[in-house]
Amino acid sequence: MNAMSDDAKTPEEEIAALRADPQPTLRATAPGMEQHLYLEKPVLDHGHIRVIDYMGDDAAIVQAARVSYGKGTKSVQNDEGLIRYLMRHWHSTPFEMCEVKLHVKLPVFVARQWIRHRTANVNEYSARYSILDREFYIPAPEHLAAQSSVNNQGRGEVLTGEEADRVLRLLRDDATRAYDHYEDMLSTDGQQGLARELARMNLPANIYTQWYWKVDLHNLFHFLRLRADAHAQYEIRAYAEAICEVVKDWVPLAYRAFEDYRLGGAQLSAKALDCVKRMLAGEEVTQENSGMSKGEWREFMGVFLPK
Amino acid sequence: MNAMSDDAKTPEEEIAALRADPQPTLRATAPGMEQHLYLEKPVLDHGHIRVIDYMGDDAAIVQAARVSYGKGTKSVQNDEGLIRYLMRHWHSTPFEMCEVKLHVKLPVFVARQWIRHRTANVNEYSARYSILDREFYIPAPEHLAAQSSVNNQGRGEVLTGEEADRVLRLLRDDATRAYDHYEDMLSTDGQQGLARELARMNLPANIYTQWYWKVDLHNLFHFLRLRADAHAQYEIRAYAEAICEVVKDWVPLAYRAFEDYRLGGAQLSAKALDCVKRMLAGEEVTQENSGMSKGEWREFMGVFLPK
Amino acid sequence: MNAMSDDAKTPEEEIAALRADPQPTLRATAPGMEQHLYLEKPVLDHGHIRVIDYMGDDAAIVQAARVSYGKGTKSVQNDEGLIRYLMRHWHSTPFEMCEVKLHVKLPVFVARQWIRHRTANVNEYSARYSILDREFYIPAPEHLAAQSSVNNQGRGEVLTGEEADRVLRLLRDDATRAYDHYEDMLSTDGQQGLARELARMNLPANIYTQWYWKVDLHNLFHFLRLRADAHAQYEIRAYAEAICEVVKDWVPLAYRAFEDYRLGGAQLSAKALDCVKRMLAGEEVTQENSGMSKGEWREFMGVFLPK
Amino acid sequence: MNAMSDDAKTPEEEIAALRADPQPTLRATAPGMEQHLYLEKPVLDHGHIRVIDYMGDDAAIVQAARVSYGKGTKSVQNDEGLIRYLMRHWHSTPFEMCEVKLHVKLPVFVARQWIRHRTANVNEYSARYSILDREFYIPAPEHLAAQSSVNNQGRGEVLTGEEADRVLRLLRDDATRAYDHYEDMLSTDGQQGLARELARMNLPANIYTQWYWKVDLHNLFHFLRLRADAHAQYEIRAYAEAICEVVKDWVPLAYRAFEDYRLGGAQLSAKALDCVKRMLAGEEVTQENSGMSKGEWREFMGVFLPK
Repeated sequence: MNAMSDDAKTPEEEIAALRADPQPTLRATAPGMEQHLYLEKPVLDHGHIRVIDYMGDDAAIVQAARVSYGKGTKSVQNDEGLIRYLMRHWHSTPFEMCEVKLHVKLPVFVARQWIRHRTANVNEYSARYSILDREFYIPAPEHLAAQSSVNNQGRGEVLTGEEADRVLRLLRDDATRAYDHYEDMLSTDGQQGLARELARMNLPANIYTQWYWKVDLHNLFHFLRLRADAHAQYEIRAYAEAICEVVKDWVPLAYRAFEDYRLGGAQLSAKALDCVKRMLAGEEVTQENSGMSKGEWREFMGVFLPK
Repeated sequence: MNAMSDDAKTPEEEIAALRADPQPTLRATAPGMEQHLYLEKPVLDHGHIRVIDYMGDDAAIVQAARVSYGKGTKSVQNDEGLIRYLMRHWHSTPFEMCEVKLHVKLPVFVARQWIRHRTANVNEYSARYSILDREFYIPAPEHLAAQSSVNNQGRGEVLTGEEADRVLRLLRDDATRAYDHYEDMLSTDGQQGLARELARMNLPANIYTQWYWKVDLHNLFHFLRLRADAHAQYEIRAYAEAICEVVKDWVPLAYRAFEDYRLGGAQLSAKALDCVKRMLAGEEVTQENSGMSKGEWREFMGVFLPK
Repeated sequence: MNAMSDDAKTPEEEIAALRADPQPTLRATAPGMEQHLYLEKPVLDHGHIRVIDYMGDDAAIVQAARVSYGKGTKSVQNDEGLIRYLMRHWHSTPFEMCEVKLHVKLPVFVARQWIRHRTANVNEYSARYSILDREFYIPAPEHLAAQSSVNNQGRGEVLTGEEADRVLRLLRDDATRAYDHYEDMLSTDGQQGLARELARMNLPANIYTQWYWKVDLHNLFHFLRLRADAHAQYEIRAYAEAICEVVKDWVPLAYRAFEDYRLGGAQLSAKALDCVKRMLAGEEVTQENSGMSKGEWREFMGVFLPK
Repeated sequence: MNAMSDDAKTPEEEIAALRADPQPTLRATAPGMEQHLYLEKPVLDHGHIRVIDYMGDDAAIVQAARVSYGKGTKSVQNDEGLIRYLMRHWHSTPFEMCEVKLHVKLPVFVARQWIRHRTANVNEYSARYSILDREFYIPAPEHLAAQSSVNNQGRGEVLTGEEADRVLRLLRDDATRAYDHYEDMLSTDGQQGLARELARMNLPANIYTQWYWKVDLHNLFHFLRLRADAHAQYEIRAYAEAICEVVKDWVPLAYRAFEDYRLGGAQLSAKALDCVKRMLAGEEVTQENSGMSKGEWREFMGVFLPK
């Protein structure tokens, strides 16, 4: 049962109807993005992202930069060169000139991380007004990870055997029971029924919610840099990666620059920079003579070692 | 067990230590606020707010306005008059010159409403890194409300008797069981232990979390106007009201203006304004001849009828 | 010479080219807005606004609200009713789901007021990189106002005769001379030429600049409420009013609600509300027994007296 | 004549009075910052920064992080290690827990760059309400730079001789004349006097304005990284550098981490990282085989060459 349908259409029929009727517009259009509009890209077991609307394209970034820099931009010969220049030098405002609106269905514990990115617009399904659907995130076996023994924020080995079975059973049973009781409490069958805004407190953090999320491209790149990163929790990373696939088709030049300068790049500290210079000059540099702490040195080595 | 204590002190001892050692400062101080610093103000069954730090006072608002308006402010004879003028005319920037930092302990479902106020700084206790405490919000009997039958977002009568008992039993039992299983899943006793960032998904929305929340006075007033309002959910309103008590002592002049112009005031539409004028001119105005919908008329009547 | 043209086309030819080639899109389109796209709406003597892009329409507001409120919105029978409800109850997030991008040409002193609205994206023509055009705002005779004798922030009578002539002559002569010297300082004719980023400091605040300004509908309404208000400086109000004309065609339902609840409405304080109640009960209320200051009473009377 | 003085005290006397009367507070105090409070640090020819208020210190950053990470932070042995870890991993929220309020006097063209940093609170002296003072920025001879011949946004050689003299004469004469005419237009001597909000349009961008600027430490570091950078315009850099001196005394541990990771560090793209790896492996890497454009390669070389 989909909270957004007002009538008898299935979600698939609604999407088909939305995609059946192109309208003429004088606005900039991004053909690569039109192909994604409204379609659900599955994420996790019951989640998805889908593009509801967008504004601008690669050319809109360039056009905005040319308002700023006027004739000064003549020397950058082409659009891609200008976009790369803007990203390299942290010029954020031209990227803010593109905007995207997504419909996202996601577990509450993912939503709680996501919402910390404040520079975005959000309309979330309200469990004060409406009743949540019975849908919970249960990790796939390959994502059922143990606590890392070396890193407080990380995951270690994948659980297997009886321990995995037990965890999955607990997650499923507790979710089912919590939702049964949620329905019981709401029920007006021979009783008043608890207020929705109270009953929801019984639901666990793996229940799915959904929202519209609207963000500009600069802030989206910031979100993606943090959340598509290997250190992000797997579950939000799955969403970030699905969004990356869409952005790549929307603004291919900007996305390529983002991959080169942000996703694939590295920030070196003054100390790290100094070590690299010494290494390039042939010096043997070790943690002991690097000026870095053990943790920093380990991360520094991670940047330059083959992955 | 308090997540913030680094050593063997109890929270009470820590607070006493923090309050025992005043330091000289050249900054503006608000004596009314000093008395609140660090002390826990209980909210709900296990929650609290407490003031960790503040910047500015009523005089700081006036001082900032005088930078803006220079000699132009001479005509407003006193500080209170100027503060009232600023609030009446929606001058927000002088109020932004005051800032407060609170430590808040609150149920997750309240935190999810609260965080929608984006213009604030937040550090939340992270259940990716650390283990949450076994503390859940269970409504007091007088707050166990039924769903409103006339308002999708509201509460109706208080539940009583067997229905109330059953709801409280379900909330308590499910919370207890969910937490037991959370601990089980984390346990490394003869097994690996599920990653904390995953195990937390089993916990219901009435578990308590905590955060530092830092906000300027303008945005705090906006929060309080919406959340201390009678239409706000009771649980977040309880926090808003506790904060009001503190703000009243911190910036008494600004708070009084806020009460008059925001909390106690009303926004009239052009139509409503027109109706009031007609009524003042002696005309009989009814919903039918008001130009308002039934809902608007009901709200309009609510503003002018005795409470 | 327009800073945005890359080639030999005139601005009119560029606009005609942009309007000549509609593309199919699956996105929501607002026919009322399509007719405005790219066209310059003149403001002041050399300024303009023009719509570069937009996202969403009235239906997008409703759609976002329905994500939030799900089945809870069934009771509001139609789109306009829901939009009015949202605005009446300060639900800002659905309005944030619409976005507009404008190209604005405006005097620097207007730009300095405008930029104080922080929740927007801006790309301004950079006088560090490029040379500003020789265009200055010179008030039309009917806007050449004296300082108000009762209000530090306001305008009084229109200047006439010799005083008006003298002021216009000074403004014109100083602007011309400042620009001549700007060009002289930049000139490399037999010399090095001062850096652009320095030479611009000689230019007065009535020189025109231009920018791309992108904002969501909620924040645009906030801007318009303050800047289309009778107390706003005439020069920025002229821009706000031109934008109002465009918004009216873009989101007619939302704009009508905005007119009723914001532009045409009034905020009453608790004291003012009390006075109205007393007046409706037949009591004679005067400033002396109102509890209001003289300034507040004057403003209160202004709300209820015929304009 | 200082716009902020309400009475007969000189600015020096006001500052002395503010510094004469320390009050006890239970809040965190930063002794290094107390010594700066209220004192004017001169910048450019007539400008200054001065600290009006602050909230928090290095310990407040650590304390906020410990709310977030709870027992998870035990492994980072000390405050400095934790602060460095937070900055290295782009954890911004703990740094947002510190706040500073500055009074800044600055030329309008610098203010226009500065205000583009939106995440801050600002109260600017209003030339709608009040009359600006006769103070203009005239560059010192050593900062009177020619336009760079290789860089549209940069400065080249310092102007000397007759060209320098002529530029300084033009700047001084135009500023003097514009201000004379500003006063003339405002004058009510035998006439009405032009409205202040109009007369100000005659003033050039090197006139001084002033504001209160309040910002959190995270956003301040962002400002400083961009504006204390060698590519920033000298005039705003002078302010950024003066602020750096104050921040260094306020939060010495955080400032040191900022210097290492931001000011002195470098961002390498994926391509640049690959080149460094190849160079470390002994390969001869040139622009031609680097995959970088000429501009990128020049910047890349700049990072690793001795300055």
